[in-house]
Amino acid sequence: MVAHRTIMNETTYDKLLARLRRVYLLESVAGLLSWDEQVNLPPASAGQRADQSGLLADLRHREFTVPEMGEWLDGLEGEDASLTDDQRTVVRWTRRDYDRARKLPAKFVTDRAEHQSKTFHAWAAARKADDFASYMPWLEKTLAFAKEEAGLLGWGERAYDYHIDLHDPGMTADRVAGLFDALRGPLVELSESILGSSRQADLSVFRGFPNDRQREFIQSVLEKIGFDFTRGRLDVSLHPFCSGDAADTRMTTRFDPDNPLDALFSSIHETGHAIYGQQLPLEDRFNPLGQPVGMAVHESQSRLWENQICRSRPFWNHFEPLFRETFSEQLSAVSSEELYLAINAVHRNPIRVDADEVTYNLHILLRFELEKGLFDGSIAVADLPEAWKELSRDIIGLTPRNDAEGVLQDVHWSGGAFGYFPSYCLGNMMAAQLWYALRDDLPDLDDHIGAGQFAAIRDWLREKIHRHGRRFDTDELTRRATGGALGPEALLRYLKERYAPLYLG
Amino acid sequence: MVAHRTIMNETTYDKLLARLRRVYLLESVAGLLSWDEQVNLPPASAGQRADQSGLLADLRHREFTVPEMGEWLDGLEGEDASLTDDQRTVVRWTRRDYDRARKLPAKFVTDRAEHQSKTFHAWAAARKADDFASYMPWLEKTLAFAKEEAGLLGWGERAYDYHIDLHDPGMTADRVAGLFDALRGPLVELSESILGSSRQADLSVFRGFPNDRQREFIQSVLEKIGFDFTRGRLDVSLHPFCSGDAADTRMTTRFDPDNPLDALFSSIHETGHAIYGQQLPLEDRFNPLGQPVGMAVHESQSRLWENQICRSRPFWNHFEPLFRETFSEQLSAVSSEELYLAINAVHRNPIRVDADEVTYNLHILLRFELEKGLFDGSIAVADLPEAWKELSRDIIGLTPRNDAEGVLQDVHWSGGAFGYFPSYCLGNMMAAQLWYALRDDLPDLDDHIGAGQFAAIRDWLREKIHRHGRRFDTDELTRRATGGALGPEALLRYLKERYAPLYLG
Repeated sequence: MVAHRTIMNETTYDKLLARLRRVYLLESVAGLLSWDEQVNLPPASAGQRADQSGLLADLRHREFTVPEMGEWLDGLEGEDASLTDDQRTVVRWTRRDYDRARKLPAKFVTDRAEHQSKTFHAWAAARKADDFASYMPWLEKTLAFAKEEAGLLGWGERAYDYHIDLHDPGMTADRVAGLFDALRGPLVELSESILGSSRQADLSVFRGFPNDRQREFIQSVLEKIGFDFTRGRLDVSLHPFCSGDAADTRMTTRFDPDNPLDALFSSIHETGHAIYGQQLPLEDRFNPLGQPVGMAVHESQSRLWENQICRSRPFWNHFEPLFRETFSEQLSAVSSEELYLAINAVHRNPIRVDADEVTYNLHILLRFELEKGLFDGSIAVADLPEAWKELSRDIIGLTPRNDAEGVLQDVHWSGGAFGYFPSYCLGNMMAAQLWYALRDDLPDLDDHIGAGQFAAIRDWLREKIHRHGRRFDTDELTRRATGGALGPEALLRYLKERYAPLYLG
Repeated sequence: MVAHRTIMNETTYDKLLARLRRVYLLESVAGLLSWDEQVNLPPASAGQRADQSGLLADLRHREFTVPEMGEWLDGLEGEDASLTDDQRTVVRWTRRDYDRARKLPAKFVTDRAEHQSKTFHAWAAARKADDFASYMPWLEKTLAFAKEEAGLLGWGERAYDYHIDLHDPGMTADRVAGLFDALRGPLVELSESILGSSRQADLSVFRGFPNDRQREFIQSVLEKIGFDFTRGRLDVSLHPFCSGDAADTRMTTRFDPDNPLDALFSSIHETGHAIYGQQLPLEDRFNPLGQPVGMAVHESQSRLWENQICRSRPFWNHFEPLFRETFSEQLSAVSSEELYLAINAVHRNPIRVDADEVTYNLHILLRFELEKGLFDGSIAVADLPEAWKELSRDIIGLTPRNDAEGVLQDVHWSGGAFGYFPSYCLGNMMAAQLWYALRDDLPDLDDHIGAGQFAAIRDWLREKIHRHGRRFDTDELTRRATGGALGPEALLRYLKERYAPLYLG
């Protein structure tokens, strides 16, 4: 009887995997189209690309929502006891995605996609003109769509939780609030003391760094930290990103001769994402076992490389000679200490994407407060500009001069991406926790980094995080990797350890 | 009654167009994947790309061969009298493609695809090792597949005609034989007298032309002759090609510092293809009215720009100053006459793709004889190497030193592309005929070219060729554009007019 059931399940399970393979493969094609759109697309070809992407989304939806898929899932769920843990993981995630795909009416999806596409342009125009009023009705409708989506999927009473869960499965607004409340006071205190220090980084030394030599230096760094260029590329786009899967990973950066650290650290950041992608189990790339957990874990990977590892003393002990060799003229008057301070500069800045790693989290706390208010109804869209300014003064310590530098600065809400921002800060917390766990497991970590040896770090990350795919959620994964619950303490400890000697020593 | 029938047909016709839109859009996605494969793909990502392309081919086949498609075609063919000429054109071509897609069994298509993919690698290895014997069984099976395909589609008695028709609809082996027979004698005579001339081009002057400056110069030329970079790109790949459609045209070239004319003229050649593509009716790009006629017409476009227009005196009168400005050092000791002779160099060469425009056609005559023999059974695959050498001596005037320089030099047969080669020579004939018709219609053609003005040429080509899409076949299109039947006379006249003054004057 058991044997019979197992065979039945294996067959059904194999059918499920074969269908998922087509779905994920179609997604990889859609991803390539999107990469090409941002890297290569001729300007007048955008309409055709929208049509191509629309067709692929339609085909993907059809492939995924065939009635058999529901039958297979029902059958496998009915035979739960005979499934392996891995099979259960695949069924659970596929059920979630399947229900989301089936429960949203086609008209809702089409109407929203059309609205979203127009909203993006309304947002871009409003930011350029510093004109929130023109954007307000678009954002109101976007928020209404977001609430309706949660309702359609049965999360009507917990609409904000739904959107947080969408980006970081298992996370809730209450949980985030608790973590952020614990972070806020000590972080504001630390950043104020750094910003008030008499010692400050001088970024004016970075002038005239030729793009092709930046590219050369970055290539050396990425190869050493472990991006696999035999199954990935680094190209140029307006905004850096990482896309693709373990079989073909495409990341981008951008070059500014007067800001070489931007290209360098954005490339390292994307490489953190990419190494996660490249170390996910290749053979499972067409099912949930080979997918990333969510945005918080993804950000923990990019931030760990960008900040903890690659802004460290040992890292620069290793790479400073090559950096100086590549830019000997430009760096001739800059001392090692000045360079290292510039790499770890802290500045009060109204713009999140330009913020350093100390003040960055304050920007997230602000957005979380506003999103909570938007979803519980205590903040209306019309109130956002003023609420933004007040919170910015309270949390970040400055008032943006206008809405372009304030409520209009981020693209996320214009794309309907509510509940995404918290993941950035949760990722920073997790990165710091991983950093200390890594040091415990690899006591000579600094020697590795100082010798330009990163294989042991990558292996540790594969073992602790990457190989698990979606088997565990953010909390469980953090516990398993670090022995502790996700929390702000490690982040605060790390920031103090790194920045106090530089600014408060 | 008529009104009713028209409405019925319009409805059915619209359904047909809507379905074709999805099919062509999927093809455009497959085309982008193929472009990316040759331009960008990381080496270890090739397996994933094959999977993606296979899935798209499967989806395209499913979209195209739904049973309704057959019903719509039956219905529209039954109401033929009520269709417009354009509708009839769309139905006719769609019927051809639909029958071809339906009549080939899935297993045949899969088996052949698998064989073809392996054969390509067998060919590449054999060419590298100059080892025809290892490749022979692969080619034999490829030929068997080609004959079987023709049989499955009802062309069993005329298998070679089927393959010629596949690349150049309406053309037959007998027709090609008649045209080539008329060309051969005079062309051999002309090329022998040029090759025997005491005056010869010196290509050794082209050394050390930096790639980035080649790129700059080429960009200027292509912009002026009229490639629309707002809906197209030029990139780098191992073998130059042009892909995409009117909405997004991607062409490639390759750079060699010691052979700047290769990048220049291959870019111009691809631009000839691209201008055809970009001037096809954009609104019909998802149906046969917006498709190119076939390979012969396509080659006539690339060759007209590459040879007749861009190797002409007036063209170089206009561009020589910019060429010299871009490469002032490299060209300092080269006179205008030496430069112009180098641009129109004629050399005896065993390799087709390295041949000049005079001897190039001889290479095609050779391949046509062999393909005829392979399909009528008078030449076995095992006999190919010797047959190649004999024909090469007779037609081209040299015997290749080995098979790598002989029967193994071309990729076409390894991909199953029989019947493709004749199109190159037919295209050259048509290009010359278009050149004289263009001169008749635009008596000050040389002044246009000499002034760097190409809009009138593009307009003439749009009017005579491009706007018609697939409405007329190669013969009919040639008659309409030039007033004469497709033939070798104009090509011979043109070659004499261009080359006699240079070599025999």
